[in-house]
Amino acid sequence: MDKVIRMTLLYDFYGPLLTERQQKFFDLYYGNDYSLGEIAESYGVSRQAVHDMLKRAENILVNYENKLGLIDKFLVQRNKLAEVARLLNEAGELAPQRLVKARKLLQELLEMDRG
Amino acid sequence: MDKVIRMTLLYDFYGPLLTERQQKFFDLYYGNDYSLGEIAESYGVSRQAVHDMLKRAENILVNYENKLGLIDKFLVQRNKLAEVARLLNEAGELAPQRLVKARKLLQELLEMDRG
Repeated sequence: MDKVIRMTLLYDFYGPLLTERQQKFFDLYYGNDYSLGEIAESYGVSRQAVHDMLKRAENILVNYENKLGLIDKFLVQRNKLAEVARLLNEAGELAPQRLVKARKLLQELLEMDRG
Repeated sequence: MDKVIRMTLLYDFYGPLLTERQQKFFDLYYGNDYSLGEIAESYGVSRQAVHDMLKRAENILVNYENKLGLIDKFLVQRNKLAEVARLLNEAGELAPQRLVKARKLLQELLEMDRG
C-alpha cells in the first residue's frame, strides 16, 4: 500500500491519540501535501524538528496498529463488502426494489468506511 | 447496553493496550465469570486489589473508546449489515445463486464482527 494512503488510514483510526501539534503537522503533511519546509516555516521551527515530530507520530500510529490490528480487520471487511456489492449489482435485474435498497445501504457502508 | 457486553466489546477492541495482568483479570472476570474473590484467591492478592485493577482497566478502555469512537462506528456498521442481510434474505426466491453467495458473505461478516 502507498505510504500516504497507509498513513492517512492510520491517522483516521488512531489520530486522536497523537498530541495536538503532532496531529496538526500530520494533517498538513499527509492530508494537505505541505512540504517539511513549508510546515517548518509556518510554525517557526526547523525542518529537522518537523521531520522528527512526523517520524515520532508515525511510529506511535504504527505501534497502535501493531497492537490492535483494527485496520487490518477493517480492510478484510471492506474487501468482503466490495464483493457483496459486486454480486448484488450483477443480480440487479432480478429483484429490483429490495436490491436497490440493499445496494444503497452497501454503498453507504463503503463510503462510511473511507471516512 | 449490558455492562458485561459493553466491557467485552471494549476488551475485544482495546484489550492489547492493557498490561498482561490487567488483561488476565479482565478476562477472568468478564470473559469467564470469575468473582473478585476467586481471582483474588487464585493470585494471592486482596479482593480490593482485584477490584481496583479492574476499575483502572475499565477506565483505560473507556478512555480509548471516548477518544477513538471505533466501537461506535463498528456498531452502526453492524446494524446496517444486519439490515442488508435481512433484505437479501427476503429477496431469496428471486436470484438464488448470487443471493446465496451474498448471504454467505454477509453472514461471515456478521460473525467476524462479533469475534
